[in-house]
Amino acid sequence: MNRAELAQQIAQKQSYLCVGLDCDINRIPTALQSQADPIFAFNKAIIDATKDYCVAYKPNIAFYEALGAPGWEALAKTLDYIPDTHFTIADAKRGDIGNTSRLYAKAFFETLDFDAVTVAPYMGEDSVKPFLEFTDKWVILLALTSNRGSQDFQMAQQPNGQPLYEKVMRRAMEWGSRENLMFVVGATHPEKFTEIRAIAPDHFLLVPGIGAQGGDLQGVARHGLNTDTGLLVNSSRGIIYAGGDREDFAFQAGEAARQVQLQMAQTLSTVS
Amino acid sequence: MNRAELAQQIAQKQSYLCVGLDCDINRIPTALQSQADPIFAFNKAIIDATKDYCVAYKPNIAFYEALGAPGWEALAKTLDYIPDTHFTIADAKRGDIGNTSRLYAKAFFETLDFDAVTVAPYMGEDSVKPFLEFTDKWVILLALTSNRGSQDFQMAQQPNGQPLYEKVMRRAMEWGSRENLMFVVGATHPEKFTEIRAIAPDHFLLVPGIGAQGGDLQGVARHGLNTDTGLLVNSSRGIIYAGGDREDFAFQAGEAARQVQLQMAQTLSTVS
Repeated sequence: MNRAELAQQIAQKQSYLCVGLDCDINRIPTALQSQADPIFAFNKAIIDATKDYCVAYKPNIAFYEALGAPGWEALAKTLDYIPDTHFTIADAKRGDIGNTSRLYAKAFFETLDFDAVTVAPYMGEDSVKPFLEFTDKWVILLALTSNRGSQDFQMAQQPNGQPLYEKVMRRAMEWGSRENLMFVVGATHPEKFTEIRAIAPDHFLLVPGIGAQGGDLQGVARHGLNTDTGLLVNSSRGIIYAGGDREDFAFQAGEAARQVQLQMAQTLSTVS
Repeated sequence: MNRAELAQQIAQKQSYLCVGLDCDINRIPTALQSQADPIFAFNKAIIDATKDYCVAYKPNIAFYEALGAPGWEALAKTLDYIPDTHFTIADAKRGDIGNTSRLYAKAFFETLDFDAVTVAPYMGEDSVKPFLEFTDKWVILLALTSNRGSQDFQMAQQPNGQPLYEKVMRRAMEWGSRENLMFVVGATHPEKFTEIRAIAPDHFLLVPGIGAQGGDLQGVARHGLNTDTGLLVNSSRGIIYAGGDREDFAFQAGEAARQVQLQMAQTLSTVS
């Protein structure tokens, strides 16, 4: 999916919500545990219930990989089931030397047909570029993540006074464009969005950390929205487990997504 | 496998060779292409031919992931086939927020039973620590990688004049010990091993980049060996594809491994 198509989906749905499919086998409702593939059954129900309120889905690959080959199959079926109208993100945080990154790109863009993959920057240019060589596919590069450990290296001041994540963003903007490169910026740093928009006014940002991680949608929207929206805000646990073990878990997930969408529509009306 | 057992294997075999199982479906000898699982058939033949000359095997996870669920099955069978005497490394370069890293650790240490996994440091402490919570399992943290892109961020000078990779190593040594933490240091930077040994005299280093990537074993050994050896030097393409498409590809791989082992034995005799 290209940038114009993504922007169109956002405008049409008045939503920039990404639903994180972090599907934990231990938290799947009892009602589904007897299914042949409980993970896929859960994802299917969640997708049906939330698709009208979100524009993107983001399976967290660790949750599938922890199950071995059956997890990988559940992931492939889930991806097939997501409607073509939705942007799909493999939250994989990959990155390796060139010939290996090329294979990870193949894994997520060809073997599976994701629109985007999250990539870790530590290994530099040749670890990121192979992901940028696919038409209408996206790299979402880690910049400033939502976790406490983001203080350790990402926030480390460089000799010019900039934090490392700013150096990462500026270098990466030489490798990709606003048409194929987004950045991960955690919602737990709303005060940083003004600086980040000064560095990358036009790029889309993938924003994890609202809901279970405590981030604040209003703050993110106020400082992060640009004329093209430019945000995909993710919620995982806050939506998919909204109904706990209840039989109507899917309805509850849909309601949780609808609540976020309503808030998003409001933030969009304030910038337009 | 713990440190004492690894040191014992090295002493016994006079080898600190790790064979990288970067098994590319397009480079598997024609003779094996008709097998039900050509990747596993290839790995099996390579393991049989090289196991006397190496102490570790390192499947590069991208090569398996690029094949989807069947790749994951080939990986599991390969791991089962590796003798218990050998140290096993999942070269996966994972790292995510705490609850997700915990699942990656489960994927590689429980679902699969690897001894070690390579981890990327960009997300900081809580992304690394979950991998350190398993008995006799290891984190091999990216420090200074073998690729050109290592210049972009890893070598970036910090305000105190140290490069970022040194900051990464010093911080990580607060999280893990020489009993559960190694570092990746590329053989393409032999001049850096003296500095790195000053930072981490006792830790094992996993050294990729000899062979196809052009690194120099003698230089690495001269500056990198410590009293406990402290090195695992990896070769992938230079060994597993030594025989190309020839029918005796496994014998050729064994010979290539034996040549490296002989050089290693020599370097060990100079320090003992």
